[in-house]
Amino acid sequence: MIEVEIITIGDELLIGQVIDTNSAWMAKQLNIAGFDVRYKTTIGDNESDILSAFEKAFSRVTVVLVTGGIGPTKDDITKQTLCKFFNTRLIFDALTLENVDKMLCGMHKKLNDLTRQQAYVPENCKVIQNKAGTAPVTWFEKSGKILVSMPGVPYEMKWAMANEIIPRLRSAFPTGNAIQHRTFWVKNHSESALALHLQKFEDELPANIRLAYLPSSGFIRLRLTGKDNDEEKLKQEMFVWQTKLSALLNSDLFSEEDADLEAIMDKVLKDKKLTLSLAESCTGGKLASLFTAIPGCSQYFKGGIVAYSNEAKQHYLGVNPSYIDDYGAVSQQVVEEMAKGVAQGYNTDCAIATSGVAGPDGGTPEKPVGTVWIAVFYKGWVKSEMFHFTNNRESNILRSCNNSIQMLLEMILSKEELIVNEKY
Amino acid sequence: MIEVEIITIGDELLIGQVIDTNSAWMAKQLNIAGFDVRYKTTIGDNESDILSAFEKAFSRVTVVLVTGGIGPTKDDITKQTLCKFFNTRLIFDALTLENVDKMLCGMHKKLNDLTRQQAYVPENCKVIQNKAGTAPVTWFEKSGKILVSMPGVPYEMKWAMANEIIPRLRSAFPTGNAIQHRTFWVKNHSESALALHLQKFEDELPANIRLAYLPSSGFIRLRLTGKDNDEEKLKQEMFVWQTKLSALLNSDLFSEEDADLEAIMDKVLKDKKLTLSLAESCTGGKLASLFTAIPGCSQYFKGGIVAYSNEAKQHYLGVNPSYIDDYGAVSQQVVEEMAKGVAQGYNTDCAIATSGVAGPDGGTPEKPVGTVWIAVFYKGWVKSEMFHFTNNRESNILRSCNNSIQMLLEMILSKEELIVNEKY
Repeated sequence: MIEVEIITIGDELLIGQVIDTNSAWMAKQLNIAGFDVRYKTTIGDNESDILSAFEKAFSRVTVVLVTGGIGPTKDDITKQTLCKFFNTRLIFDALTLENVDKMLCGMHKKLNDLTRQQAYVPENCKVIQNKAGTAPVTWFEKSGKILVSMPGVPYEMKWAMANEIIPRLRSAFPTGNAIQHRTFWVKNHSESALALHLQKFEDELPANIRLAYLPSSGFIRLRLTGKDNDEEKLKQEMFVWQTKLSALLNSDLFSEEDADLEAIMDKVLKDKKLTLSLAESCTGGKLASLFTAIPGCSQYFKGGIVAYSNEAKQHYLGVNPSYIDDYGAVSQQVVEEMAKGVAQGYNTDCAIATSGVAGPDGGTPEKPVGTVWIAVFYKGWVKSEMFHFTNNRESNILRSCNNSIQMLLEMILSKEELIVNEKY
Repeated sequence: MIEVEIITIGDELLIGQVIDTNSAWMAKQLNIAGFDVRYKTTIGDNESDILSAFEKAFSRVTVVLVTGGIGPTKDDITKQTLCKFFNTRLIFDALTLENVDKMLCGMHKKLNDLTRQQAYVPENCKVIQNKAGTAPVTWFEKSGKILVSMPGVPYEMKWAMANEIIPRLRSAFPTGNAIQHRTFWVKNHSESALALHLQKFEDELPANIRLAYLPSSGFIRLRLTGKDNDEEKLKQEMFVWQTKLSALLNSDLFSEEDADLEAIMDKVLKDKKLTLSLAESCTGGKLASLFTAIPGCSQYFKGGIVAYSNEAKQHYLGVNPSYIDDYGAVSQQVVEEMAKGVAQGYNTDCAIATSGVAGPDGGTPEKPVGTVWIAVFYKGWVKSEMFHFTNNRESNILRSCNNSIQMLLEMILSKEELIVNEKY
């Protein structure tokens, strides 16, 4: 198994002004490609810290992937520090200048004294032209180990990893890497109750297969990870344990897709050619933003109403005002009307409606913070459920999103079965 | 300056199933409290890696903050490894059991064999009861250095940091830490053009003050960071450089708030008692979710329409169908109608409307991916603008959000001036 260390460089990461979303994405892609990410290290734009991190990484892994610190501004010093580490110097590269010019042109910008400096690259490395930005990717090899420096801008990093770095790493290390994951979405369990239920299964697992628990806003994702040099053997072994685990989870297992719930739903709606609309009160547009982040969602997503006021619930969703007066905005009656109202307004097969007390304010003794009503609509059927989540706003919004998607998923699948059965 | 290392533990962080949002939040709070986060390290649930990371951290910083790996399941081994590192053992703690029981009760759950194990804590540490979950926080001291282990669940970590760990660190290190930041939101510049403009200013900065560039979806945030042992002296020094920088940025500086744009807008709307509604096409609910993530937004946010189809634009926003036919959904005419329509429907002072080609599909030669029309509405005035962003969906959505908020901010501020002037 080839081991990798990810080093992210930038003062902004150490003062918390930027959340590092890059390294999770990189780790996921590297895992799929059969590489084992063993360490992640974050340091500031500081020469001695960068040099120590490079040295440490070279002493403990085979592949070092470095992001950040290669912009044209003065605070970025990764390129100069790479020269020091690899005992080389910056030289002018005409091909890189050509690429920088082309990239700037596409952004309706012109070369200036600073962007011109992007064309100076370390002498003893392979330069990989960046087709998503202006800072080139540089690839170093030394005593059988590899270090690659790439931009920290997320879409430039993603372009470089997917199109250049991972393919080149696969050719550099063609054999012997097998790492496999299986994911299990489990409902109706707390982490500890599930762990007790699976204790015997875990004790029986061989040393090369591990089980991890990933609580995910109201659900548990279990991840079974196997490592072996023989890919075919590992596949068979994983199948045995995967089957055992599915049997143990029984009806509490509702998906084995290694994807977020909205991506699982996206696939179902596209496959079944169904349409979706959303009526959001407590989720405040979060549900819509989860679906619309996925390319091609306009195939099924017609739109939503963020009904953050009672007037909106009446005006846009046709909720009976007396329901709001009699039962309150957070009630079964209102949330079911919201689901039916939005499905009718957008003329969709499916709909989700949420109404709850996200907090921190707005709770009452009868409906404390964390009380959420969710309704799902599918071709005329409506199902609703009340939840008591947490006292944290962010968590309540995410749990409402996850639970509502899961409810609609189960409704579609159970009713589809019904429809198929009725036909025969 | 007291230096800190953050160590995050968990296999899920190394295979990319979870994005580490904790360490950015922690770093920000630590900075505000006057601590200098120098390193962040991520490792898996693996004893030898955890021990090496603890050793390395103890050798280079004064305070080590550790998150994760203290749940009740078998894959979590941080607690046992802490015992090994500090040469101690787990003992039963009745007070901790009492707290675990109380916390479970609040979640409508009961103690079981696994959650009972949370009451076993290392013998030679201070135990801090977790009032947001069941895993206790443990605080170790050794040769003048401090290590604190806390849960990785974000809201449990946040509770522990804010209520227990930061206050205790401040009493442990009462003097001599001053670190100050100033933030500048800049428009109309690329990173490199701005860096050229500020070259002389940067060259003149004293060694204890640094300038960093943080591109932020269409804008540049500049951050001036000063460090000194004398807080009062630093304050005066920062004021001098802050004033120089503001003058250089001139009208391209539009905010000095150290907050995201939606939080700046939140404050303006609350202060001025204005109301807001949103008509989102290409931003697909993202704008609404940014505002509704902020507690108390219902004071001004009345709701939104996620108009992902032409029918929705007509039905819910009253857009003239002939405009869509004649000019297309991504056009000045349509986006202005959307803004007026949503402001009228929700009866709000302000509104934002977005319509664009987020990509990756849907582009045409006249309107390629990245073309976005934005309109803002304020008390009857409407302003619209066309943008050419990137070829990346995520980036186009975020840039649309940021630019639209900035447009509305400027509109409110300029019109408010007008209104005030007209009165005199």
